[in-house]
Amino acid sequence: MIRVGIVGYGNVGRGVALAVEANPDMVLRAVLTRRDPGSIKITDSDVSVLSIDSAASLVGEIDVMILCGGSATDLPVQGPYFASMFNTVDSYDTHAKIPGYMASVDAVASKTTAIISTGWDPGLFSMMRVLFEASLPDGMSYTFWGKGFSQGHSDAVRRIDGVKYAAQYTIPIDSAVNAVRNGEKPVFTARQKMKRECFVVSEPGADKVMIEKSIKEMPHYFADYDTTVNFIDEEEFDLSHSKMPHGGMVLRSGNTGDNDQIMEFLLKLDSNPEFTGSIMAAYARAAFRMSQEGLFGAKTVYDVPLSYLASKDRLELIKDLL
Amino acid sequence: MIRVGIVGYGNVGRGVALAVEANPDMVLRAVLTRRDPGSIKITDSDVSVLSIDSAASLVGEIDVMILCGGSATDLPVQGPYFASMFNTVDSYDTHAKIPGYMASVDAVASKTTAIISTGWDPGLFSMMRVLFEASLPDGMSYTFWGKGFSQGHSDAVRRIDGVKYAAQYTIPIDSAVNAVRNGEKPVFTARQKMKRECFVVSEPGADKVMIEKSIKEMPHYFADYDTTVNFIDEEEFDLSHSKMPHGGMVLRSGNTGDNDQIMEFLLKLDSNPEFTGSIMAAYARAAFRMSQEGLFGAKTVYDVPLSYLASKDRLELIKDLL
Repeated sequence: MIRVGIVGYGNVGRGVALAVEANPDMVLRAVLTRRDPGSIKITDSDVSVLSIDSAASLVGEIDVMILCGGSATDLPVQGPYFASMFNTVDSYDTHAKIPGYMASVDAVASKTTAIISTGWDPGLFSMMRVLFEASLPDGMSYTFWGKGFSQGHSDAVRRIDGVKYAAQYTIPIDSAVNAVRNGEKPVFTARQKMKRECFVVSEPGADKVMIEKSIKEMPHYFADYDTTVNFIDEEEFDLSHSKMPHGGMVLRSGNTGDNDQIMEFLLKLDSNPEFTGSIMAAYARAAFRMSQEGLFGAKTVYDVPLSYLASKDRLELIKDLL
Repeated sequence: MIRVGIVGYGNVGRGVALAVEANPDMVLRAVLTRRDPGSIKITDSDVSVLSIDSAASLVGEIDVMILCGGSATDLPVQGPYFASMFNTVDSYDTHAKIPGYMASVDAVASKTTAIISTGWDPGLFSMMRVLFEASLPDGMSYTFWGKGFSQGHSDAVRRIDGVKYAAQYTIPIDSAVNAVRNGEKPVFTARQKMKRECFVVSEPGADKVMIEKSIKEMPHYFADYDTTVNFIDEEEFDLSHSKMPHGGMVLRSGNTGDNDQIMEFLLKLDSNPEFTGSIMAAYARAAFRMSQEGLFGAKTVYDVPLSYLASKDRLELIKDLL
């Protein structure tokens, strides 16, 4: 059994806990938190809930620490800190800063395996971009995100005066996706590729016209997109907008000789954090196996053979799934 | 430059030649054939066209031999023969016999890297089946083939008395695909999953009713499926049925907690053999790199990290595509 620890018990951390339960060769042993450990309810008595400061006491007890903190402030500190003591998996997702983050983790991972930037983007989508480009060197790649709930954009709407609750969905534009699928190789502006839809519960007496204008004109977040704003009541909000669905697709439209070839990968997720947690659990298995083979240092999804992700052994995979 | 040899210059072999041209770090150096070498026209004077019996004379001149023969009789002999002298890539596709074939290649590949069963199924589809199952351990996987031209089924129709030319297409049934996409996790019979469509040019005076009956009742090939037979003239056949399109999809419908999660990979190929050749070229790069690192023996798509497939180096991939 692979003994797993979870660092940070938010939406993704709870998703990892579900995934560990679904994998027959893993067991959850510890949850580490910056909050008061007493505030976290875990029914399984074999799981220790500890302060993040007690991490060192778990060396030898945990095979892989799955780091579920955010990329802005948590992981830049926690990534190197934990990788110096444990095999780790994280979902560091600030694309532009990945090389620097990787170097900071690699510097301390001399006796551990640290797989960074897993999940689905970065993660599965990144894998498809490389696989697709290698499969069709003459072509163009496209990534569409959505339909999905965006935390950052929802927060931005919530900060507007008079807004009580808000949910923002990113939606790929069908005609754009279809143009790619038809092999047209279009070049898109942001507005041509996706649109945004907001569901807003306003405070009593708030100026809805002003709220809608503030959303649609917000720079960076909304100004470059066509945005629809729907005002709804609190009951409907609770009923229809409490989950965190997401998804998207990676496409490549390429050519061999005179022929068009299309590759497509698509995700339709009812729960973004639970899916992310499930991918991280699979990479925890890989981190454990690679560390057993002495493959230490910072790794990415590009470095891990697929056989390391599976609970079945290699020969079984070849027999059953190749 | 990676120096490539092609063994067998049929549809897939010509697809590999196109792919080598499209990859900036590869050069075609030799084509080996069982036919009269003089019958193969290659305009590039740097490419030697030789009898397959001269293979040993190329040791040290070729970095990877891409084996384009068939699985029934060519590869069981050629796979081990070439892997004893060269790094190799093949598309061995008799699923049930892969473990035995792999063992026969592995036994001789003590100083070479031999990547077996590449292409798209086995190959990319096999990779998705493992990646999807690891990502969503609680779920069901589905593979649909088509819409696509089937050589084996077309040949079977062509052997019927009175048939001059025939093309058979395998077509997934939309309602079946949509049921999977909706998370219904159906269990299918063969007939519920896909249908077959034939385009037939009959000999003058042939009994079309008898031909149609012979097709629809043919055991193994057609009896278990709903089949449509269209009689067309030779002109239309040449115009509309001379290419070899194919494709298909791998889907997984899974759950995390109470949530539905759908993963999908889809190919729409105007030329099946050229796409297969393009994938084999990417794996030739991987075979070359793995051999340089001393990673010898028979390998599968499950053993090759994605970074080995790309012409860009690893840090560039991490910076640009992760």
